[in-house]
Amino acid sequence: MVSSNLFAVVAGVGPGTGAAVARKFASAYPVALLARSPENYEGLVKEINSSGGKAIGISTDVASEESVKSAFEKIKKEWGSDGCAAAIFNASGKFVRKPLLEMSVDDFVAGWDVSCKGAFIFSQATLPLLLNAAPKSEHPPTLIFTGATASVKANALMSGFANAKFALRALSTSIAKEFAPKGIHVAHAVIDGVIDIPRTKDWLKDMPPEAKIDADEIAAAYWNLHLQGKRAFTNEIDIRPMLEKW
Amino acid sequence: MVSSNLFAVVAGVGPGTGAAVARKFASAYPVALLARSPENYEGLVKEINSSGGKAIGISTDVASEESVKSAFEKIKKEWGSDGCAAAIFNASGKFVRKPLLEMSVDDFVAGWDVSCKGAFIFSQATLPLLLNAAPKSEHPPTLIFTGATASVKANALMSGFANAKFALRALSTSIAKEFAPKGIHVAHAVIDGVIDIPRTKDWLKDMPPEAKIDADEIAAAYWNLHLQGKRAFTNEIDIRPMLEKW
Amino acid sequence: MVSSNLFAVVAGVGPGTGAAVARKFASAYPVALLARSPENYEGLVKEINSSGGKAIGISTDVASEESVKSAFEKIKKEWGSDGCAAAIFNASGKFVRKPLLEMSVDDFVAGWDVSCKGAFIFSQATLPLLLNAAPKSEHPPTLIFTGATASVKANALMSGFANAKFALRALSTSIAKEFAPKGIHVAHAVIDGVIDIPRTKDWLKDMPPEAKIDADEIAAAYWNLHLQGKRAFTNEIDIRPMLEKW
Amino acid sequence: MVSSNLFAVVAGVGPGTGAAVARKFASAYPVALLARSPENYEGLVKEINSSGGKAIGISTDVASEESVKSAFEKIKKEWGSDGCAAAIFNASGKFVRKPLLEMSVDDFVAGWDVSCKGAFIFSQATLPLLLNAAPKSEHPPTLIFTGATASVKANALMSGFANAKFALRALSTSIAKEFAPKGIHVAHAVIDGVIDIPRTKDWLKDMPPEAKIDADEIAAAYWNLHLQGKRAFTNEIDIRPMLEKW
Repeated sequence: MVSSNLFAVVAGVGPGTGAAVARKFASAYPVALLARSPENYEGLVKEINSSGGKAIGISTDVASEESVKSAFEKIKKEWGSDGCAAAIFNASGKFVRKPLLEMSVDDFVAGWDVSCKGAFIFSQATLPLLLNAAPKSEHPPTLIFTGATASVKANALMSGFANAKFALRALSTSIAKEFAPKGIHVAHAVIDGVIDIPRTKDWLKDMPPEAKIDADEIAAAYWNLHLQGKRAFTNEIDIRPMLEKW
Repeated sequence: MVSSNLFAVVAGVGPGTGAAVARKFASAYPVALLARSPENYEGLVKEINSSGGKAIGISTDVASEESVKSAFEKIKKEWGSDGCAAAIFNASGKFVRKPLLEMSVDDFVAGWDVSCKGAFIFSQATLPLLLNAAPKSEHPPTLIFTGATASVKANALMSGFANAKFALRALSTSIAKEFAPKGIHVAHAVIDGVIDIPRTKDWLKDMPPEAKIDADEIAAAYWNLHLQGKRAFTNEIDIRPMLEKW
Repeated sequence: MVSSNLFAVVAGVGPGTGAAVARKFASAYPVALLARSPENYEGLVKEINSSGGKAIGISTDVASEESVKSAFEKIKKEWGSDGCAAAIFNASGKFVRKPLLEMSVDDFVAGWDVSCKGAFIFSQATLPLLLNAAPKSEHPPTLIFTGATASVKANALMSGFANAKFALRALSTSIAKEFAPKGIHVAHAVIDGVIDIPRTKDWLKDMPPEAKIDADEIAAAYWNLHLQGKRAFTNEIDIRPMLEKW
Repeated sequence: MVSSNLFAVVAGVGPGTGAAVARKFASAYPVALLARSPENYEGLVKEINSSGGKAIGISTDVASEESVKSAFEKIKKEWGSDGCAAAIFNASGKFVRKPLLEMSVDDFVAGWDVSCKGAFIFSQATLPLLLNAAPKSEHPPTLIFTGATASVKANALMSGFANAKFALRALSTSIAKEFAPKGIHVAHAVIDGVIDIPRTKDWLKDMPPEAKIDADEIAAAYWNLHLQGKRAFTNEIDIRPMLEKW
C-alpha cells in the first residue's frame, strides 16, 4: 500500500474498462470516478467504499473545461492536492458509424470533443497533480489513455471515431515525450477487440469467451504499466482477445 | 485539356503549396481558390486569369459549415454543378508550439478545427461534386489532403498540431476506403520538411536550397496523383527535400 | 531524352511490373533487364530494340553476389560506367504460404535471400553508378524497390514473405537516408493488390478490371518518382486498385 | 509455482536482458539457457541452481537448425517433452554500423541470420512444446521476441541491423496471428534505448541512471506478458528509459 495521500482518478467510468480499472487501482489508492451520468459510478462507489477502499464519484463532462475544473476542486477538497499517482482517461466520444455524407458536423465533432479534447482537458487537470506526486509516489505517476482499433486503423464509415482516436494517440505520445523527463509515465493502450460487458453480451454470441476482452485483464495491464520504474517505461501496448482477427 | 465543365478547388491557398497547386491545376481546369483572407488569393486569381486560365477566389473559413456552403454556392453559380475533377485541402490550423500546461483549450481546438473538422466539411461539400464528375472526368476525380511530419510523428510541445494532423490522416484513409469503390481517388501527402516560401526564407539559411521543399514540386506530385487511373491509386505519399533528416 | 550515356537497370523482369517498368524507362534510357531465366526478358529485349529503344538482357541470380557482379560487368562493357540514371529492384523471393511448422528453413530463407539480400547486393552494384550519374543526370538518379502488402502487414502463414518484405522496406529507408544527401533518390513502393498479369488471370475473375492493378500504372508511378527533383523526394508510395479492400 | 514439468527457455543469454529474463522466469520454471558461448550462461546457471531454482545451459548457435535441434534434445532429456510454458528469443545478429558500400554481404547476412532466421528456427523448435503445454499451463504459453529501436526505425548505416529487426517483427506478428487461436501468446518488445550492462557502462556517462534501461525491468515486463490471460493478449510493447529521446 502506497501513501494514502495520493489518489487515482479514472475518467470515463462505465460498466466495462472504467469500472475494472477503478476497482484495480482502488486496491492501492483512493479513487475518484468521473462519468457524465451518476448511474455509471454510484454502484461502484458504494462497492469500493464497502469493501475497504475509498471512492468518490463526480458527475463530469470531460469535454468541458469548467466541468473538469469543478471535478478536480471536489477531489482536492476530499484528498488535498498532494498529488495524483495515476490518472486514467477512458472516455470515448459517441461512436457514429455512418457514410461520410450522412454524418452531421455535430456527429463528427462529438467524437473528437470527448476522445481528444476531453483527454487534453483531463491531462491539463491531472498533470500538475502527477508532477506533485512524482517525488513521493512509490511508482512513477502514470497517465494512461484508452485507445481502440481505430487508433491505428481508419476504416470506411468510421471517420468520426477514427480521427478522434488517431488524434488521441498523437496527444498521448506528445505528452509522453514532454513529461517523461519529469518522471511522469504516459501510456496509450490500443484496445483491439470487443470488451465483454453487458452492452456487448449479444455480440459474437456463437464464439467462445476468448473472442472478447475481459475488462479485468485490461485493468491488470494498466496496473502493470503503473508499476513500471523510470528505467523502463512502456508507452504503448495493444490488447486483444485470443480469437481476434487482426 | 479536359472538359471545361469540370473545375478544381483548392482550400488553403497561401503563398506556398496552395498557390503552386492552384497554378498547376489551373493549366487544366478552372480553379476556385478558398482562403480566409482575400489577400491570399487575389494576386493569384489575377495571375491565372491573365495567363489564359480561369480562377475565382472566395473568402472562406473552412472550419465553418456555413462559410463552406456559401463558397460552394458561389462556385456552382460560376461553373454549374457538373462536377469537380480535383479538390485539394491544404488548410492547416494555427501552429501552436507550447508546453502542454501553457496551452489554452482554444489553442488546442484551433488546430483540429481547421485541419480536421475543416477537412471534413470540405469533403462533404466536394464529394458529391467529385461523384458527379466521375463518369465524365478524364482522370478519376481526386481529393487530396496535405499532411505534415506531424501526421505520423507526435513530438513534445506539438500536441495541438500533431493531434489534428493524425486525425486528418485517419479521415483521409476512411474517406479513401469509402469512396474508392465509387471511383474517387483520395490521397494524403505527408509533407516532411520546410517549404520554401517567403515566411520561411530565414529558416535553414546556412543550408543549400535542397534543404527546403519546392512548392512547385509538391504541386507536380499532386498532379501526378490526379493522373493515376482506377487500377493504381496511391493513397499516401511522403515528400521531403534531399537534405531532410528523418 | 536525357544523355544517352546513362542507362537504367531493372532486376526482376517478368511479365508484370518488371516488363512494364522496363518499357517505360526504355523510352528515355537504354535498359538492362536482369532475370534468372532468359525467357523472362528475351521477348521484351527484342520488342524494345525493334521499337527504337535499346535493351540488353542478362541472366542473373540477384541473391548471388558473383552473378550480380558479372551482370554489371556486362552492362559496363555495353554502356561504360558513366552512370546509371535509374535502378529498379523488382525481384521477389519464392512466395510460400504455409503454416509455420510446415515450412522448411530453406523455404524461409528463400524469401529473404532474393527480396532483401538480393536488394542489398543490387544496391551495392548500382549505387556507385547512381552516384556517378548524379552530376550529369537530368533527374536525380533513382533507386526504387518494389514492396507488397506484406511490407507493412504480416499475416498468418506469410512469415517467409512478410519478414523479407518488412526487411526490404527497412533496407530501402536506410539507404534513402544515407544517399539522399548525395543526391540519390531512393523510394519504396507498397504494391497492395493483385497485379493483372497472365499468371493471375483467373484470380478475382468475377470482379471488374478495377479489382486488379495495371502494371503500366505502376511503371508510370515509378517514372514519376524518377522525375522528382531534389527538393521533393517521395520515399514511399502505396499503390492499390480502386476495388481493393484495405 | 506452476507445474514443475513445464520449463522455460531463453535464447540469447548474455549479461543483460537474457540473464535478467532467465532469473525472472527461473522463479517459476526450470530454465534452459541457450547462448553461443558457455561463458555467457555458466555463472548464471550456477547462480540459479544454488538459489533454489533449476537451470541448464546449452551452447547453441540459433542460426543453425542442427544446433537448435540438438539443444532441444538435451532439454527433453532433462525435463521431458511435457511442454514449454515460456520461450524468449533474445538473440541478436552482429550489430554492424557501416556505410552501405563498406558492408560485405557477410556483414549484411549476419544480422538477419541470427535475429530473424534464428528466431524462425527457435520458433519451430518451441511452438510444438508451447502447444503441448497449452492445456496444462497456468498461464497461456508465451513466446516473446526481443526487438529494438531498429525494429520500427531504419536509420542510415544501420541497414544490416534494421532489416533484420523489421523482419523479426513481421515474423512475430505472423506467428502471433497463426497461434493465438491455439492459445499461444506471442509478443514482440521494442526495446528503445541503451540497456545498462557492463558493455555499455561508458555510454551516456554524463547522464543520470534514468537514461538507460534496467534489464530487470525488461524481465518484469516479459513476465507480465506471460501472466496475461487468453482474453487480453498484448502482442507488442515498447520499453524505453525515462530520459530517452524518441
